[in-house]
Amino acid sequence: MKITKEEILKFEKLYRATFINSIAGFKSANLIGTISSEGKTNLAIFNSVIHVGANPPALGFLMRPVSVERHTYENIKKTGSFTINHINKEIYKQAHQTSGRYDKDISEFDECGLTAEYSKTISAPYVKQSIVKIGLNYIEEYEIKYNGTIFIIGEIAEIILHGEIIGKDGFINIEDAGTIAISGLDSYHETKRMSRLSYAKPGVEPDEI
Amino acid sequence: MKITKEEILKFEKLYRATFINSIAGFKSANLIGTISSEGKTNLAIFNSVIHVGANPPALGFLMRPVSVERHTYENIKKTGSFTINHINKEIYKQAHQTSGRYDKDISEFDECGLTAEYSKTISAPYVKQSIVKIGLNYIEEYEIKYNGTIFIIGEIAEIILHGEIIGKDGFINIEDAGTIAISGLDSYHETKRMSRLSYAKPGVEPDEI
Repeated sequence: MKITKEEILKFEKLYRATFINSIAGFKSANLIGTISSEGKTNLAIFNSVIHVGANPPALGFLMRPVSVERHTYENIKKTGSFTINHINKEIYKQAHQTSGRYDKDISEFDECGLTAEYSKTISAPYVKQSIVKIGLNYIEEYEIKYNGTIFIIGEIAEIILHGEIIGKDGFINIEDAGTIAISGLDSYHETKRMSRLSYAKPGVEPDEI
Repeated sequence: MKITKEEILKFEKLYRATFINSIAGFKSANLIGTISSEGKTNLAIFNSVIHVGANPPALGFLMRPVSVERHTYENIKKTGSFTINHINKEIYKQAHQTSGRYDKDISEFDECGLTAEYSKTISAPYVKQSIVKIGLNYIEEYEIKYNGTIFIIGEIAEIILHGEIIGKDGFINIEDAGTIAISGLDSYHETKRMSRLSYAKPGVEPDEI
């Protein structure tokens, strides 16, 4: 069936949000940890983290203009750092709970049963229960004129993970780390690798590696 | 173990690309279809498509500055439209093969065994074998100063999919559509839903829905 933009615009608001949020495909499942200048920690779930570059190493994520995520934004702008922590099978319910509208004085770490952990490199808190944790320094942001969302870019300062999930070629087996995927706003998925494929060359069928 | 930015910068180039590309978590698996003003079709795999907004409905993706993806960029700028087509279990090898460096005159549809399909709404070609297809009009782009990548935003003009995967609340069951997830540059994963969780409220444990 075909659904046009005009039909989408006529959908009931919550139905439309659920529908459009499912359409991009599977999404990364991460917790972004920050701290305010007064030392209050904040933790929020994000499904929009993407790769920006390998050299220098950088990630980005898209943030809604006014939302529960605003504490994350304010903290990043004030302190200049944030952490990205993979959500795994053991903590996805706690991670989901961070999307509740908690007051600024309340730490989602405490309220959702997750533990803050610190490194000397940056001030932002990591999630102890995550197997893959990334510390980043804020680089720049772009406000998307079209709808006011903000694309934020951070440079990787350090990565904390279990060494055994790093393969000989540098591939990190995030499936072995229990990392999950998200679809829509609230659906959590474990994964099963079908295969890795060799570098594509015109006229040559890719091999499983 | 902890890996610092300085250590990452010293990694061998391909090892670093493989490593950093695995770190963001699972990624969406999509084929972007375009057509040139001369009518030549182009198809390229992208793992950076993310949700931008529901009202109006919009998606975005990040593109490398100079790469095989440049045909996609040129076509979008000239014709104003593109399609996003979910990669499913049946076509992931063909989808991977589109990342080969084909000449501009060669259509990845023909070379990789996928079929172009058209709608009256936009000029860009869809992938017939995809179960979930999205037609978009180009809205705007942001060049990321930090490394020259380009974040492109498109507004959804139409969505073509099988009606039976749309739930009563608007949730699209992309797992039922066979949609897969990507990790790193070359690892393809099927998914298995653990649960959907109810809207998070402070002080209330989320229910499975």
